[in-house]
Amino acid sequence: MNSFNSRILKEIKAKQSHLCVGLDINPDNFDNPNLSIDDLKAHTNKVIDATRDIAIAYKPNLAFFERWGSKGFQWLEETMQYIGPEVITIGDAKRGDIGNTAKQYATSLFDHFGFDSVTLSPYLGFDSIEPFINDPNKGAFILCRTSNLSASAIQDLTLESKEVLYEQIAKLAVKWNDNENVGLVVGATVPEEILRVREIAHNLPLLIPGIGAQGGDLSKSMKYGNQNGVALINISRGISYAGDLSETSIRKSAQEYLEKMRDLT
Amino acid sequence: MNSFNSRILKEIKAKQSHLCVGLDINPDNFDNPNLSIDDLKAHTNKVIDATRDIAIAYKPNLAFFERWGSKGFQWLEETMQYIGPEVITIGDAKRGDIGNTAKQYATSLFDHFGFDSVTLSPYLGFDSIEPFINDPNKGAFILCRTSNLSASAIQDLTLESKEVLYEQIAKLAVKWNDNENVGLVVGATVPEEILRVREIAHNLPLLIPGIGAQGGDLSKSMKYGNQNGVALINISRGISYAGDLSETSIRKSAQEYLEKMRDLT
Repeated sequence: MNSFNSRILKEIKAKQSHLCVGLDINPDNFDNPNLSIDDLKAHTNKVIDATRDIAIAYKPNLAFFERWGSKGFQWLEETMQYIGPEVITIGDAKRGDIGNTAKQYATSLFDHFGFDSVTLSPYLGFDSIEPFINDPNKGAFILCRTSNLSASAIQDLTLESKEVLYEQIAKLAVKWNDNENVGLVVGATVPEEILRVREIAHNLPLLIPGIGAQGGDLSKSMKYGNQNGVALINISRGISYAGDLSETSIRKSAQEYLEKMRDLT
Repeated sequence: MNSFNSRILKEIKAKQSHLCVGLDINPDNFDNPNLSIDDLKAHTNKVIDATRDIAIAYKPNLAFFERWGSKGFQWLEETMQYIGPEVITIGDAKRGDIGNTAKQYATSLFDHFGFDSVTLSPYLGFDSIEPFINDPNKGAFILCRTSNLSASAIQDLTLESKEVLYEQIAKLAVKWNDNENVGLVVGATVPEEILRVREIAHNLPLLIPGIGAQGGDLSKSMKYGNQNGVALINISRGISYAGDLSETSIRKSAQEYLEKMRDLT
């Protein structure tokens, strides 16, 4: 068992944690909005230092790096170096393009930046997913039912078969999981949908964002997400901007989330 | 009329052209696969020099730059400088994320890189589109029916309403077009779908990729795409890697596509 999905399972057992730490570092969240990239970099490293032993995964959100262009990508390269090979990395890129282009994105995210896994959009179908799941050691979390308000207008569309679109995506993801390296993204803001996805997608790891700033339900996310499989619970702002932004405050907040999750296991 | 869509219309009339030049520069397409980024940069600039007066738009595909990480983004920054403000730019990024993250991507693509417009994925709904269409001068082409083989498994799903998913996306795009800056991406490989989209989305510009390497139908793309609105026909590999890769060969190929399009008008 050397697949990406088995690695997640192993790490969750070893650390007794479901914590995924989202790295979405944004100057707007600091009192001083004129921070330099070096300041943001120092804060990112502080978040990593404070959580390394309890995080199952780090999930840098590419948008927050791309905002600064080539300098932001340099920061991401350095962040990936700083994280190192021990903790799983998820490149939250939500890419989705035709096969020829998807290959370039896979080269970027896996070979250049060195991510262990990525988030992908399903709208273009299998062509756009395949280059990311050929290697069993590398994983892909497919957007299924997202945490945002307007997701419903598309993802909850009822099909002729009476299924809902996101259910169809979950079924396709199960089909794509030959190498045991496909997971699904389902928002903590829609716990009933987590339950429904779990009925369809046994054993596929779920990546559940939306706790904290977005108001998702931790208790139901843990309960439903860890039925017939495991869930990674992502916390971004709730950890990165905790208290006075010191390493101690960040650590304390991460530990509190960890304890809550352990109590719910 | 200062909207993004009116700018496209004006340029098409002024240049008597529907040509969008895709910039997907890849060492695999050269005889010598060990080209440096500087070599690729020089080739990109050559393609721009050869087509500046006849291209309505340049469409750099971000994946081909991201493949090289921060150095690739530096190349993209320089490419945007090289193109300058005269010719419309389309950042082919196919981004799609929740509102808070979409804002960062809009900052990246519009403010940092300076694109006039972008391509976006619709799977997350309006939240993920809104930050890109608040400014009427900036535009967004929403993926509707893409040119790749596996698109059908998702985009052609029949809804309970008997509509097909991509038709529903076209309807939503029409609703989102208050600022006259929303367009749609429909592949040249599926001309009947172009016709169908045109029945729904009058006046929204279509961005039509898939001519050349992907085998799309130029004649039908021009005919259907320019009914009730205008179409930009994207050519990437067919121009960038024409003949002996000299500026003369690239120019000749671009001119031939232009003439074909003019004959079909």
